[in-house]
Parts: sequence; structure tokens; C-alpha cells
Amino acid sequence: MPAYATNMRLKFPIVALILEIITIILFAVFVVYDDGEGHGHEPHSNKTHKEEPMDLYPMFQDVGLQWGLLMQGFWHLTDGKIKINIIKIINADFSTATVLISFGAVLGKTSPLQLLIMTVLEISIFSINEHLVANILKANDVGASMIIHAYGAYFGLAVARVLYRPGLKNGHENDGSVYHSDLFAMIGTVFLWMFWPSFNSAIADPGFTQLTAVINTYLSLAACVLSAYAISSLVEHKGKLDMVHIQNATLAGGVAVGTCADMNIGPFGAMLIGLLAGIISTLGFKYLTPILASSLGIQDTCGVHNLHGMPGILGGLAGIVAVALGKKEDGDPAMQAAALASSLGFALVGGMITGFIMKVPIWGQPPDQNCFDDSIYWEVPEEEEENEESLAHGDHSKNKAEV
Amino acid sequence: MPAYATNMRLKFPIVALILEIITIILFAVFVVYDDGEGHGHEPHSNKTHKEEPMDLYPMFQDVGLQWGLLMQGFWHLTDGKIKINIIKIINADFSTATVLISFGAVLGKTSPLQLLIMTVLEISIFSINEHLVANILKANDVGASMIIHAYGAYFGLAVARVLYRPGLKNGHENDGSVYHSDLFAMIGTVFLWMFWPSFNSAIADPGFTQLTAVINTYLSLAACVLSAYAISSLVEHKGKLDMVHIQNATLAGGVAVGTCADMNIGPFGAMLIGLLAGIISTLGFKYLTPILASSLGIQDTCGVHNLHGMPGILGGLAGIVAVALGKKEDGDPAMQAAALASSLGFALVGGMITGFIMKVPIWGQPPDQNCFDDSIYWEVPEEEEENEESLAHGDHSKNKAEV
Amino acid sequence: MPAYATNMRLKFPIVALILEIITIILFAVFVVYDDGEGHGHEPHSNKTHKEEPMDLYPMFQDVGLQWGLLMQGFWHLTDGKIKINIIKIINADFSTATVLISFGAVLGKTSPLQLLIMTVLEISIFSINEHLVANILKANDVGASMIIHAYGAYFGLAVARVLYRPGLKNGHENDGSVYHSDLFAMIGTVFLWMFWPSFNSAIADPGFTQLTAVINTYLSLAACVLSAYAISSLVEHKGKLDMVHIQNATLAGGVAVGTCADMNIGPFGAMLIGLLAGIISTLGFKYLTPILASSLGIQDTCGVHNLHGMPGILGGLAGIVAVALGKKEDGDPAMQAAALASSLGFALVGGMITGFIMKVPIWGQPPDQNCFDDSIYWEVPEEEEENEESLAHGDHSKNKAEV
Repeated sequence: MPAYATNMRLKFPIVALILEIITIILFAVFVVYDDGEGHGHEPHSNKTHKEEPMDLYPMFQDVGLQWGLLMQGFWHLTDGKIKINIIKIINADFSTATVLISFGAVLGKTSPLQLLIMTVLEISIFSINEHLVANILKANDVGASMIIHAYGAYFGLAVARVLYRPGLKNGHENDGSVYHSDLFAMIGTVFLWMFWPSFNSAIADPGFTQLTAVINTYLSLAACVLSAYAISSLVEHKGKLDMVHIQNATLAGGVAVGTCADMNIGPFGAMLIGLLAGIISTLGFKYLTPILASSLGIQDTCGVHNLHGMPGILGGLAGIVAVALGKKEDGDPAMQAAALASSLGFALVGGMITGFIMKVPIWGQPPDQNCFDDSIYWEVPEEEEENEESLAHGDHSKNKAEV
Repeated sequence: MPAYATNMRLKFPIVALILEIITIILFAVFVVYDDGEGHGHEPHSNKTHKEEPMDLYPMFQDVGLQWGLLMQGFWHLTDGKIKINIIKIINADFSTATVLISFGAVLGKTSPLQLLIMTVLEISIFSINEHLVANILKANDVGASMIIHAYGAYFGLAVARVLYRPGLKNGHENDGSVYHSDLFAMIGTVFLWMFWPSFNSAIADPGFTQLTAVINTYLSLAACVLSAYAISSLVEHKGKLDMVHIQNATLAGGVAVGTCADMNIGPFGAMLIGLLAGIISTLGFKYLTPILASSLGIQDTCGVHNLHGMPGILGGLAGIVAVALGKKEDGDPAMQAAALASSLGFALVGGMITGFIMKVPIWGQPPDQNCFDDSIYWEVPEEEEENEESLAHGDHSKNKAEV
Repeated sequence: MPAYATNMRLKFPIVALILEIITIILFAVFVVYDDGEGHGHEPHSNKTHKEEPMDLYPMFQDVGLQWGLLMQGFWHLTDGKIKINIIKIINADFSTATVLISFGAVLGKTSPLQLLIMTVLEISIFSINEHLVANILKANDVGASMIIHAYGAYFGLAVARVLYRPGLKNGHENDGSVYHSDLFAMIGTVFLWMFWPSFNSAIADPGFTQLTAVINTYLSLAACVLSAYAISSLVEHKGKLDMVHIQNATLAGGVAVGTCADMNIGPFGAMLIGLLAGIISTLGFKYLTPILASSLGIQDTCGVHNLHGMPGILGGLAGIVAVALGKKEDGDPAMQAAALASSLGFALVGGMITGFIMKVPIWGQPPDQNCFDDSIYWEVPEEEEENEESLAHGDHSKNKAEV
């Protein structure tokens, strides 16, 4: 594909601004403050920030937020108006988390314009599945293991499959990490870790149930971290620890306990889920990701399958078991199973359709040799160009050559 | 100016300690806990932390905090005592934000001692303007677009104008950024972004009004991020995105919606303000900042004019319009206009006076060639010196030469 | 010691997993949710996150958390069960802070397995001392200057003394810092600074007392930052500031005001404590740490003696004085003194015993030449190996040589 095709100068601003103007018009027509709810939800005003640290892609998160408010709002019109309050914003924020997760599977191989399209489509499909799971099936998924984590991961993997680049079959020199970018990622991990209990309890019933969600999430994360460290040491050369495992697998416990976070599964139940999540997640990074890439043509850039995919399914299964064991009053295992199947179905089918739309060669996707190179879509300090690439992508060979 | 003039060994510690001792004595004489208020404000205890991530210069923020408590307190003596509570601390913290903003205009060209003097003077003048705006004019400025952002930016720009260095007319080799320091800045951006809704709603009336402030800020930021990305792509070479725009312009929506955050401007009203803020802020970075430096002799190190100055004025104007349209009960557009004028006036006049005091050549200001070089006021790992400069300032030519 | 001895492949995973399984079994047998407490403590659910930013070593913090819940729980069995709620989790989290502090004294010279053993032993001994101080002596230590900071610091220093490596008497080439890792540390400092008021007030009586704790901590930190800057400038070459002082000494005020944070010591009292803490902490880094290493054979890697040790004792002494002056109703200076002595005693004796156990040469401790080198226990990007060491440890000579 010719390089100039990656020029976003007109395409991107036009699409983005048109989208924003349409959104503002829709807001002007449909959206009002929900004064009725206001007071009751004051305490939640903090919660809205809690999951923000996930927000690593401000723009898409914001498109997602606005679009999510509309898409989810249309299921609950009051006198033809969408009444927004803090709870609605939390839910819209939740929906954007799915997009951030999916990005992890396609990052470095897509253009901002492609990601913008993916955002709008994924949010729209998400709102259908969420409506089905929450309002029709009335399934439990307080921490969203199924509707956010599993949905987001498999949606992204389906897109990645459709966008498969045979040219990158053997990896890309730019696709790596360096020590100090690993440290960066670690900061993110620590914050996600801190906020996960709030994330899993954000929409739980206030009081004892919400506290149970906090405690279960905490204990699951704690157990998960330990098993992630242990397995990482077990599978790595000379028993060393792999930063990538620690950055990711340590969070799998938060994902996996999501569905039954507010259920009476007991402290050790939460710890068992976390222990298991840490094990499968670490093993996934070590053994499954390479196989997905080489055999199935799924190039999972950030390994979302290990952090969100498998732990999300584990969470869904744990929810079925917990409900079957009567850990949640008036829960129905059949509905839990249907919710898991629905989330995976919408993710895979929706992701493939989205992938084919993104594949149309008019969105300025990068040629293979420019993948994982920020400088194609970002201005970087001139004299720094190659140096900064290397700093960002662990490819120092260039410099040395050059020097 | 001879280099030894930058030696802070005696000047700085003496001034700092004397200042601290005076402050402690003033506290001992005037300041007591406000037990009357205590309980009522418990919920605010969190709020005090919310704007903390702005605190990138702990020392000056703290001088500011203590000095602000005194300066603001003197307007509200009770039986000759200043009664401090969490609300007073929030307000004092607010006042320190102005100093951090102003620093952005003079950073890299001033000594710690100069910044210390600037802190004390700016806070004192701030407290006069704040008293005038809040208690005399009784104008609305819940998110402080006028009294903090516009005031802080134009105060800093006035100081920068007085401290103009013809020697730096054509920029400075050290004045730049590198990829990984951009990543650092991005972390700061994400946190400011997260906490802005709390910042704009911190002193709003609890309940519906406060929630409105959170929602308006959220929506304005969301719209602003989108327009900042779009305009950045539109003006940059080959439609690339500029990290500096994304780090800064994405926050302009929070600044601009500040004054009317708690007004009934409607979700789309908030989005319109954000959209506009993102556009002017990005265009300012691209076109206005270079002109200010070359034509007006205002070397705005961090571009505070684009993030705080213009969006702050936009916020003030939006406030006038909103109040005129009756979006705030018993608001008076004339008083809003007076508040904006007052904030700008105190900023420009106060900033120039402060600048002339800072210009007296006894404060150890750095010679031109040492500007933007931390090692003049900071101990840096010895063998690292030149290397660390380069890491910090994107000037790698030195290393390459040296190697 | 032969290099292969550092191979953690079997030892570490086995010990870690066995420990986790034992813990889960103990939880299954002893731990239940505390429904009675649930509602009352809702507000605290946020607090649990507040001190999280301290969590820089997720795994050990989690082992500590789980072990702490058990150890502390055994002192308060109800019908043979440990009832956990948010408060218990806060307390367990507190106990893990001691471990993170102690790590600062032995970091870079110990293996993950040694740290794991240290974690379990330190937490167990902590729970005895805490029980004694809080329940038997009924001493005041709301911000835990004595039971966490002093205990953690001297426990770690005792371990460091026992693990003394004559081979590192003259320091280690890898033991240093680079500009950008200093920036990282600074982010941590800012967050600890922000959250300290919450940390010191987390378990204070809600309402006025808790607000007093927030305000006292805030003012102590503010005064401390100023004196730390002043003294750093006073003692450094040409009055420059030392990042290490700023990163650490600026927090000493939070440590030192801990014990009397919730006492009626007055705003200026809090500022005096902070002022003093900043001075001794900065002087400690400059003059005491080198002496400890050269004369006493205590190699305090991160200078915990200056940030936690001396300020912790200062806090304990301030508590004795404040209680003697009647600043806390029904406080007893004798009990305060006993609490300080007990905390130091358990720390020194417990630390030495733990050190001797850690010294048994079967825990894969690193040989001298591999100290302060992450690559011995961590997988690092291959082509990056020497480069990443240098990035992490400020030793760029290697590169230059190599180039």
C-alpha cells in the first residue's frame, strides 16, 4: 500500500468533526439532566473517576463515552428524552472499557481512523448485548467479566483475525518493549490494581453487598498476584520473573472474580478464582499467544486474550457455578450461561463484521513496515526521530549502527 | 551575569527558612481549627486530594498553601482568629494552582529563589482578586476559569514579558522534549483529565448542582479531546498528531467550562464549550505561541496561554452569556464581566510588578546558556551529567558528538 | 556463591504456591465476612485504596495482606472465626506497609525467596507488637509513626546488618540512579504526599477528630517540604537541590506527625513537627547514611532510616510530649513511651532473628557482583540487556565502552 495512503490530514479531521457534530446535535435533541436521580447518586460521583486510569486513549474513550450515553440511552427513553446522571455515565464509561480492551489486540497495526470506526461500531453492538444480558436475561455480571472483559477481548481478537497481516507472521522488529517502558506499564498496573475493587463494586447494591464485592475483588487479586509470580518463575528461563506476566496476569484475578464479586462465595472462594486466573493468564502469555499468532493468524498485540479473554470466560463460568450453588438469591444458572454465550457470540460476529469494514483500504492503514512505529501518525521531535523509535520500541540496533 | 551568581547556598535556605518561621509564628498567633465546621464538611476531606495531581512543584505548592491560608484567612477573621477547615484548605489549594500555572510561563529561565518570591506575591494578589470577585461582585466562577486559570496564565505571561531574554529570542537547544518525557507528561494529562470533574465541582452546592458540574465538565472534556485531535491532525504535517497538543488541548475543555460548570447550560451546551476550547487551544499552540515569542517577546515555556489563558477567557465569556440567558438564578452578567476584567487586570498589573521585583539581579537567575538545564540548580548523577541533560531535553547531538 | 544458586525455578514457585495453598485453607477454615459491620464502614471502602500507592511490590504486599488478615485476626476470634471487613483489610494493609518499608533497607541484595520469608516473619511479629501497643498498652498511634514506620525501618535495618556484605563496603557500580528514574520516583513521591493525610486519618474517629488528622498531616507535610528544600540547598555543593532529598525528606513530615495527627496539637504544632522532620531527614541522607554503611556495616539501600526510622521515633517522642501536655484526653505518656520502646524492641530483635534465617545459604541470594542488577531475577528484553541495566542503574560507561 502506498505510504501517502496513511496521510490523515483530511480524512481523519473531517470524519472526527462530523461525528462530533452529529453527536452534539443528538445530545441537543435527546439528552437532558436527570434531576430526579441527582441527589440519590451523589456518592457515585467519585466512582465515575475510579475506572478512569484505564483511560489510556482519551480520544476514543470520549467518543465512546458520548456514543455510549446515546446508544444505552435509547433503550431507556423517558418522554422521548435520555435522562443522564452519574450512573448513566458510569455505564457509558463501562462500555468504553470494552473498546480499550479490544484496542489491545489491534494496536500498532491500525490507523486512528480505523480505531474511530471500531469504537463507534463496538459501542453500538455492546449496548445491544448489555441490554439483552442485563434487562432481558437479567443475568448477574456486577464486575462485567462477561459483558466487558470477554466481549471486549473476543471482539478485538475477531477484528485482529480479519486484519491478519501475513507480512508480520514472524513478528516485527519494532514490536517489543524496553526496560523503562516496562516501568511505565507497571505504574498503570499498580493503578488498575488499586481501582479494581471500586470497579467491580461500582454498581453493586450499596452496603454489605458492595463491601462484599470490594473484599472479594481484593482477595482474588491478592491470590492472583501470587500465582502469577509463581508460574512466571516456574516457566521462565532459570526461574526469572517476566515483567509482562507481572504487569498483566496480576490483574486477571480482578477480571475473573467480576461476575460473582457481589455473591456470597466466601473469602476463600474469591481466592480460589484469583489463584486459577493467575495461572491460566500467565500460561496463556507464555504458550498460547505464540500459537494464536502462528497457527490461527491472530496477532494479539497486547495479549488481551490472556488478561481479559480467558479470565473473562473463567468469570462467566464461576458465575454459573456460584449461582447454581445458590450463592446469589434469585440467580438462574441458565441465564448466566446464556449471558456468557451471548457476550461471546456478539463479540465474535460483531468483531468480524467490524473487521471487514475496517479492512476497506480507504482508512489509511499503515503498510507492514510502518507497523508499531508511532512516528507514522505522531509528530516526534525531529532530531529524535530514530532515537525515539528505539526508546519506544526497544530497537537500539539502529542507533548503534548509526553511531 | 557571572555564573557564581546562581549559587543558592546561603540566599535560598535563609530566605526559605525565614519565610517558614514567619509563617509558623503567624499560624501560632492567628490560626485555630474550625470545630464548628468540622462534621459538616467531612465529605470534602476527599476533595482536598482531588486537585493534588496538579502539585508538580511540592515546595512552592506548600508555601502557597500556607501563605494562602493566611492571606485568604485575613479576609474572614473571627474574634481575631483564622479558623481553618477542609474548605479553607481547598480554597488555599486553589490559590496555589494559580502559581503552578504561572510557573509554566517562566520555567527554565528562573531560579528557585525567584519562584519563591513569585509564589508569595502571586498568592497575595490572588487573595485580593478572589475576595473582590467572590464576596464583593458575588460573581459565579465555580470552576475558577477566571480567578485561577485566566489569572494564573496572564500573571505568568506578564512576568515572562518583563523577564524577556533577547538571548533566547531564537529558542534554546535545551528547550525541547523527548519521546519518553512526553510519555511522562501524558500520565499527568490523564490524571488531570480524571480529576477535573472533581476540581470543577469541589465547591459547588452538594446534590444536583454538584452533579451537574461533574457531568458538564465530563462532557466538555470529552468534546474538547475530540476537537483537539481533529485540529491537531488538520494542522500537522501529513495529518499526524502532535503529542504536545494532545497533552494540553485535551484539558482546555475543563478550563473553559469552569465558570458555568454548575449552571443549567445543558449537556450540549457543555459540549459546545469544550469543542470550541479544543479548537482555540490547539490553534494557539500551533500558530499563536511562536508569534508571542517572536513579536511580543513573551517566551511562554509551556504554552500556558493556550491551556489556561484563552480557555480561561472563553470560560469567563461563556459565563457572561449563560448568566445573561438566565442559566443561573440571581446571576448578573455585568458582575460576571466585571469579574473577568478584574481577574485579567490584577493578573497583568500584578504580574508586571512581580516581574520587575524578580528582575533585580540578586536572586541567582541563570545565565542564558544555562536556561532549561536542571543541573544548574539540581544535583544530578555525576557520570550522567551530559547524558541526563540530553535525556531530559531532547538534545542527543551532544552524546553523539562525544561518542 | 555459585551463580546457579540464584536459580529460582523450583524453590520459589514451590514455596510461594505452598504458602498460598496453606493460606487459602486457613481462610476456608477461619475467615468469614463480617456482616454485622458491613454498612457502618461503607465510607471506609475508599480509604482502603488510599494507601495503595505504597504498593510498589504487589506480590509481597498481597502475601502480607492475606497473612496480616490471619495474624491480626487470630487476636480477635469470634466463635472461632475471623470476621473480615473493610477495617480489618485496612489494618492488614497497614501491616504490609511495614514490609515495604523494611524492603527499602535490603533491596538489591536479596532474592525474591528471601523477601517472601521476610514478609511472613515481619508481618507475624508486627501483629504481636500491634496487639500489645493497641490493645494492652492502649497507646495512641493513629498515623502509626511507631508501629509501622519506626518498626518497619529498624526491622529492615536489623536485617540489613545481619546480611552485611563486606564485598559491597565501598558501594556498587550498579547502585545509583539516573535522571529519568528519578522522575519516576518523583511521581511516587507526589502520590504518597497526596495520600498521606488519608493514611494518617484512615482510622481516626470520623468527624472533627478525623478532619484534625487530615489538617495536621497536611500542614506538617507542607512545613517539612520547605525545610527539606532549604536544608538540601544548604548542604549541597553550590546550594543545588538533591532529588533524593526532595523525593524522601518531603514525606518525613507525614511520618513524624503520625502519632499525634489526631491530637489537639494546633496547626503550628503540626508545622513545627514537620519542620523538624524535614531537617533531620535531609541531614540523615547527607551525613548519617554514609556513616551507617562505613562504620556500622548497615547498608541502607533506600535510606529508610532517614524517611521512616528517625521521623518515626520523632513521631513517637512528639506523641509522648503531646499526651503529657494533655493534647489527647485519657492518653498516658508512660504508655506512649512503652509503645515506642516495644516497637523498637520487636523491630531490632525480630529483625535480627529474621536476618539470620534469611542468611541460610539456600534462598538463592545474589552474589555480590550481581547485586542491584534486576536481570538476575527478571527477564529483560534480550538485545537490551546491558542497555537496560544502564538505563536502570545510571551506569552508562558500559555502553560507551561497547560503542
